[in-house]
Amino acid sequence: MGKTRVEAFSDGVIAVAITLLALDLHVPAPDVRGGLARALAAQWPNYAAYTVSFLTIGIIWINHHAMLRRLVSVDHAILVLNLLLLLTIVLLPFSTALMAAYLKASNGQNVAAVIYGASFFALSLAFFTIHRHMLLAKQHLLQEHLTPPARRQILRRNAVGLVPYAIATVGGILTPYITLVICAAVAGFYALPSTSAERQPLDRDEVGDDLDRA
Amino acid sequence: MGKTRVEAFSDGVIAVAITLLALDLHVPAPDVRGGLARALAAQWPNYAAYTVSFLTIGIIWINHHAMLRRLVSVDHAILVLNLLLLLTIVLLPFSTALMAAYLKASNGQNVAAVIYGASFFALSLAFFTIHRHMLLAKQHLLQEHLTPPARRQILRRNAVGLVPYAIATVGGILTPYITLVICAAVAGFYALPSTSAERQPLDRDEVGDDLDRA
Amino acid sequence: MGKTRVEAFSDGVIAVAITLLALDLHVPAPDVRGGLARALAAQWPNYAAYTVSFLTIGIIWINHHAMLRRLVSVDHAILVLNLLLLLTIVLLPFSTALMAAYLKASNGQNVAAVIYGASFFALSLAFFTIHRHMLLAKQHLLQEHLTPPARRQILRRNAVGLVPYAIATVGGILTPYITLVICAAVAGFYALPSTSAERQPLDRDEVGDDLDRA
Amino acid sequence: MGKTRVEAFSDGVIAVAITLLALDLHVPAPDVRGGLARALAAQWPNYAAYTVSFLTIGIIWINHHAMLRRLVSVDHAILVLNLLLLLTIVLLPFSTALMAAYLKASNGQNVAAVIYGASFFALSLAFFTIHRHMLLAKQHLLQEHLTPPARRQILRRNAVGLVPYAIATVGGILTPYITLVICAAVAGFYALPSTSAERQPLDRDEVGDDLDRA
Repeated sequence: MGKTRVEAFSDGVIAVAITLLALDLHVPAPDVRGGLARALAAQWPNYAAYTVSFLTIGIIWINHHAMLRRLVSVDHAILVLNLLLLLTIVLLPFSTALMAAYLKASNGQNVAAVIYGASFFALSLAFFTIHRHMLLAKQHLLQEHLTPPARRQILRRNAVGLVPYAIATVGGILTPYITLVICAAVAGFYALPSTSAERQPLDRDEVGDDLDRA
Repeated sequence: MGKTRVEAFSDGVIAVAITLLALDLHVPAPDVRGGLARALAAQWPNYAAYTVSFLTIGIIWINHHAMLRRLVSVDHAILVLNLLLLLTIVLLPFSTALMAAYLKASNGQNVAAVIYGASFFALSLAFFTIHRHMLLAKQHLLQEHLTPPARRQILRRNAVGLVPYAIATVGGILTPYITLVICAAVAGFYALPSTSAERQPLDRDEVGDDLDRA
Repeated sequence: MGKTRVEAFSDGVIAVAITLLALDLHVPAPDVRGGLARALAAQWPNYAAYTVSFLTIGIIWINHHAMLRRLVSVDHAILVLNLLLLLTIVLLPFSTALMAAYLKASNGQNVAAVIYGASFFALSLAFFTIHRHMLLAKQHLLQEHLTPPARRQILRRNAVGLVPYAIATVGGILTPYITLVICAAVAGFYALPSTSAERQPLDRDEVGDDLDRA
Repeated sequence: MGKTRVEAFSDGVIAVAITLLALDLHVPAPDVRGGLARALAAQWPNYAAYTVSFLTIGIIWINHHAMLRRLVSVDHAILVLNLLLLLTIVLLPFSTALMAAYLKASNGQNVAAVIYGASFFALSLAFFTIHRHMLLAKQHLLQEHLTPPARRQILRRNAVGLVPYAIATVGGILTPYITLVICAAVAGFYALPSTSAERQPLDRDEVGDDLDRA
């Protein structure tokens, strides 16, 4: 199968998932106690979880594109692994809503945080798995020849990305705020322009040359 | 009409339907009895039905692409049959939510299971119908010449795919677990990499040569 | 602006709208009186309204594609008219849910039917308006030269399509069943393969030659 | 990264967001007091807010396309700024629902109006920021050479577009109707064909020559 339709389908799923995140922003009932401003302010966990999840899905989308650009075409195994990656992305609106509902609760907040962190970890793991399969098992589908050390380096960088989410997941046992702060920091690290400037020399093969598909 | 926009529209509908599946994962109310962990664990039918439906829609998407690759272009009849196929796909979030809500119930669980199985059967039947129409009635639209035996063989393989869903539907009369297990097994059979390796020689014309659209 | 992105955006909006229709299929609560089968059977207006709306949106999508194929490119006025067309499409899940909720009611059923019919009429009118603008005011954007009689003939056929929806809207004042039956009949007329066979010589310029975009 | 997938992803997100707006149109319960017609008429703030938001998102989509057409390709900073723009678009169904729920309320209507106006302002600001970054910091990615005065003129026109939304936001402190009327007027100004005719000579570089991508 060609890459075009895999990209189109993945883009579609990611676009719907990232937009459904906002469904968890609730309009307070017009007769809400204490007034609308206070009711909206009390929803801050929703805004925080929404922003972190939105940026994370957005960055995954950028990386997904960079990953597929490495390929000439896809086979059945890559399609199925890509489906599993999309499955974890589609779960994020649920885990985000869970985190938002329980962040300030006195019961269940740790369970919610562990699930929130774990959903980001699962996303990264699915991403790592498909990347690893491409680079190690399906070299004949790659656009360019990558030496074994180059491939191992890409994977090592991917694997390093799993660590903060593992810490965020375990940290949720202590307090959900650790989870939220770590996930926010990871999103910020990849999104902030200053960081990106520093990253670019390292990640040249990720972000790639800009001109080849215009 | 060219194939490009049929693919784009179908991809869009399938992407939305597969993402809406996750809307049926509910966040328990913060004061839920027995705690959040228990409330989430009690939702396991939702996770099971979600996973089975997600993988099934994903596989249908893969097969849909393989089917359209056979065509040079589409005509009105194929467009309408494709619409009917999309109609059955769009029903899956409903039948999945029904199955999840009733799997453990003491009333209605068989009705729900029969509908769940029947919705997968309808999906396969719509897929078979459009494939059959293409191969038997619209040979002039096919990319390559297929001998009558080759066409019959493809259709036979498609028809065989209807059998497990027929059993899953009827089996729901006994217990919904039969339905769920069979539908899960079918999704696993098509998705698992080991199975795929075995399948590939047989299905070469389905998955196709990887290089022709890159 | 080129046509490609207008097609992609319109396809996206139509794909989401057609999929959201199914959100109005409700899962009865597990302890529903009279059993699940009866509760689902009582929802038949939802299934009827869903099917009619799904097929109608699907046919609009087919016609939308045929219409854009006439153009070399689009200008600001066509973009805005296309937005208005999409606005009417996006309203259909609402008017469909309204029709489904009130079809069997003893109050409000006529209001709901008139709105349901009017939403289909508005859709057809928006479609007619954009087509008319293209054919009469923006001839320099057309792919091929069409003589004034040919253009008038296409528009006359479009205008004729408004009549059944006008009748369906007014007929809702008597009983909502007239509205539903007429809207279903229109969808069936355009969708049924037998009808399509009869239509093809007449509508050759609509469905077009199949090979030019493959 | 090439532009194609950025366009496809942005189109997807915008298409979902614009369609989700209609989820806020509610079907009154069949036994609603005073009858269905009155209950629907009482929802007029929903229709007004829906229409204004739909047209505004639609116009943003048109402008987004015009903006990306200026680029040969995109880099990491543009991708992240585009994500922030999409984040503000995805918030509109929420702020629209808020405005609709509170427009006629006697408490909270000013808060809702300020948030509604501010969400349009944030959208325009995100749009301005990405445009500014492209024109001033990433000239090597532009399709054509633009002289510094030409670039400043484009940005000035963009900046002027922020003013009405700033007024609409602040005006919400007095009454929500100021906010709604200004936002509607802006949408109308960009959408109405007569206005567009006047605008075209000024905005030639925005709407562009029609033939280059057909």
